[in-house]
Amino acid sequence: MAGLQVHSVLVTGANRGIGLGLVQHFLGMPTPPQWVFAACRAPTGQRAQGLHHLASKHRNLVIIPLEVTDLASIKAAAAQVGEHLGGSGLNLLINNAGILKCNLLDKETLEDMTHVYTTNTIGPLLMCQVFLPLLKKAAQASPGSALSCSRAAIINISSQGGSISSPDGWDLMQIVSYRCSKAALNMLTKCQSLRYKEDGVLCTALQPGWVQTDMGSCAGHTPPVTVDESVRGMLKVLSSLSEKDTGTFLDWEGNVVPW
Amino acid sequence: MAGLQVHSVLVTGANRGIGLGLVQHFLGMPTPPQWVFAACRAPTGQRAQGLHHLASKHRNLVIIPLEVTDLASIKAAAAQVGEHLGGSGLNLLINNAGILKCNLLDKETLEDMTHVYTTNTIGPLLMCQVFLPLLKKAAQASPGSALSCSRAAIINISSQGGSISSPDGWDLMQIVSYRCSKAALNMLTKCQSLRYKEDGVLCTALQPGWVQTDMGSCAGHTPPVTVDESVRGMLKVLSSLSEKDTGTFLDWEGNVVPW
Repeated sequence: MAGLQVHSVLVTGANRGIGLGLVQHFLGMPTPPQWVFAACRAPTGQRAQGLHHLASKHRNLVIIPLEVTDLASIKAAAAQVGEHLGGSGLNLLINNAGILKCNLLDKETLEDMTHVYTTNTIGPLLMCQVFLPLLKKAAQASPGSALSCSRAAIINISSQGGSISSPDGWDLMQIVSYRCSKAALNMLTKCQSLRYKEDGVLCTALQPGWVQTDMGSCAGHTPPVTVDESVRGMLKVLSSLSEKDTGTFLDWEGNVVPW
Repeated sequence: MAGLQVHSVLVTGANRGIGLGLVQHFLGMPTPPQWVFAACRAPTGQRAQGLHHLASKHRNLVIIPLEVTDLASIKAAAAQVGEHLGGSGLNLLINNAGILKCNLLDKETLEDMTHVYTTNTIGPLLMCQVFLPLLKKAAQASPGSALSCSRAAIINISSQGGSISSPDGWDLMQIVSYRCSKAALNMLTKCQSLRYKEDGVLCTALQPGWVQTDMGSCAGHTPPVTVDESVRGMLKVLSSLSEKDTGTFLDWEGNVVPW
């Protein structure tokens, strides 16, 4: 990961699973970021103990309260992040927060469809709108250089379940609300790449693998990939991203995933 | 269109644009359906005059009040359709109702994202859940035969704007809420095709072209395709659909659209 030189990164849904793994790996880098912002809904709750343990050892870790479906909460988080950064920008925004409802197609409801879409798709849209000034500031600090995660990037954590052409795992989990939200997130990523290219911000959707997290283990399944393997792979992918990768959908091993 | 022998069809958003065009063409077929159900939100309003004019001339046309975002309204519509059909099923459900907000990415809101998704994606999901018994009944009337629109089918009217790999028209219209909802509708279509194949119901997403309707003319553009050309093309495509086409995304001329 020699290529990934990030001054600042923000990870949403950072209190557990892949989000917590990303925070741990950023902190453990040979040259760690000066600021690692770990955002989560309930930073004082029982489920954020792992983050607090890390924060007691790493002074570059800042825990940020954030509800990605609430514009006011996002704006408050951006203000807090901006204060820490002083005059500098944010290099890397990782939209990782997401939810899943283990429903069959016949049992999906308007409420679950709406709830999942709001968190998994609208949340990343609002996050990017509000954090864009900080991302642009980071991009402007390296004028004329190519797109990269070290400069300024939005990474949306998607899913193989969001691949329309390869809807893997249908027989195991129908999870239509989740699949629809992730296909829409992939579309959002494409739109963001078209819009934010002129601002010097790279935008890529990442598929983390089927990972051993609470979400991955939905309905009693045992996923094949550990959090450590997934995060290690994704960080390697992030270090390699360039101009040609903006607006694409890649897996944790760097392979292109079909839309 | 010799291949399209539909006993009954229901079109949502049938009071204008593509929906009204579909109803007109079904009624004008050499062998028209025994029942054409034209569903729309406000059947007594000013905007439904075209439908009432048709109904005065065609006794096989039934106007049905329907709000596709309201489960109770959908159930009432299904009950009304079921009464007309007597013991027989519904061959063809065309989820055409949709809305578009002419927003730039930077101006999208949680409210618009939610509103567009609810109508364009959740609506078709709920419609299919509620109308499935009638579609299954139609499929069961031709046991053992291959999937086709003449037997039992769900057609979701999607858009080129829902193609993630070819997001045409970005420079003309960003319309991210619409694009995300249609990418999600494409995913829903794929999921429905996997789920409903065992019930004998074909599921396909259709791209009607960029059509001269109120929606197509959003932001003052002049689309190249007339309603008549689009509907004529789509009906020809419907007449040709078979087993191999379930779960696919086709345009009004029958070409495969990339996801």
